[in-house]
Amino acid sequence: MKAIAAFVLTAVVATSASPCMAQFAKPEDAVKYRQSALSVMGTHFGRIAAMASGKAAYDAKEAADNAAIVEFMSRLPWAGFVEGSDKVGNTKALPEVWSQNAKFKEASEKLMAETTKLNAAAKLGTLEALKAAVASTGGACKNCHDSFRAK
Amino acid sequence: MKAIAAFVLTAVVATSASPCMAQFAKPEDAVKYRQSALSVMGTHFGRIAAMASGKAAYDAKEAADNAAIVEFMSRLPWAGFVEGSDKVGNTKALPEVWSQNAKFKEASEKLMAETTKLNAAAKLGTLEALKAAVASTGGACKNCHDSFRAK
Repeated sequence: MKAIAAFVLTAVVATSASPCMAQFAKPEDAVKYRQSALSVMGTHFGRIAAMASGKAAYDAKEAADNAAIVEFMSRLPWAGFVEGSDKVGNTKALPEVWSQNAKFKEASEKLMAETTKLNAAAKLGTLEALKAAVASTGGACKNCHDSFRAK
Repeated sequence: MKAIAAFVLTAVVATSASPCMAQFAKPEDAVKYRQSALSVMGTHFGRIAAMASGKAAYDAKEAADNAAIVEFMSRLPWAGFVEGSDKVGNTKALPEVWSQNAKFKEASEKLMAETTKLNAAAKLGTLEALKAAVASTGGACKNCHDSFRAK
């Protein structure tokens, strides 16, 4: 049943990131939206990463709960990277998000694929499976940050 | 299948809001978390509300996609209202969040119940059903804001 739920969830959310939903009144709203979504995702990923690194006690249920949220949140931020929202507010998004948009899109898709694997791995209920998936997901975060986010 | 997914999703996320997951290094982090989650929810609810009020064209699929996100996001902010996070940063949370916590909790549960109904109503695919659910959900937002958020 959980597998079905994950599938439906992924389908629902994946289609939600379509360009026609990228409706923001102002570029500032788009920046706030993407930063908010990334922040929520980061909070929950951070809790799993803390377990994987031994900084927090491993709790299989909490890991799974957090991973489900990470997977869901990973679908959202991309719609906020609308044209004209570079150099807006306190964004750290580099111009490469738009000038190398295919590469950016690929990096975002890589992250989404990794968070899906993370969610599945967290449900296995072992710290070992979690550690491997956290490393892969963290790599996908870093990959995108290195190329598309200002230091 | 969607009903099952919604059920599982609700179960997963509802348990995620347990106090033991309210782990923030600093009160500022808790404020940022709840504001981010509320902001993402508000963005997606705003899109549905625009359809309900006629400011945007009604699109059944977009309404349903947005409502699924609203329901999911409505489970998250509450864990961020940790003790000691009033008067932190630019929070608008009133002291009543903590001094009348049972009432606050009730208001948050009312909102969650309404977003579940909104998600179900949006899937019916009629503007009429959507309008009624948007009004109820908006009422639950307002109810909480009136008592617990500074003007």
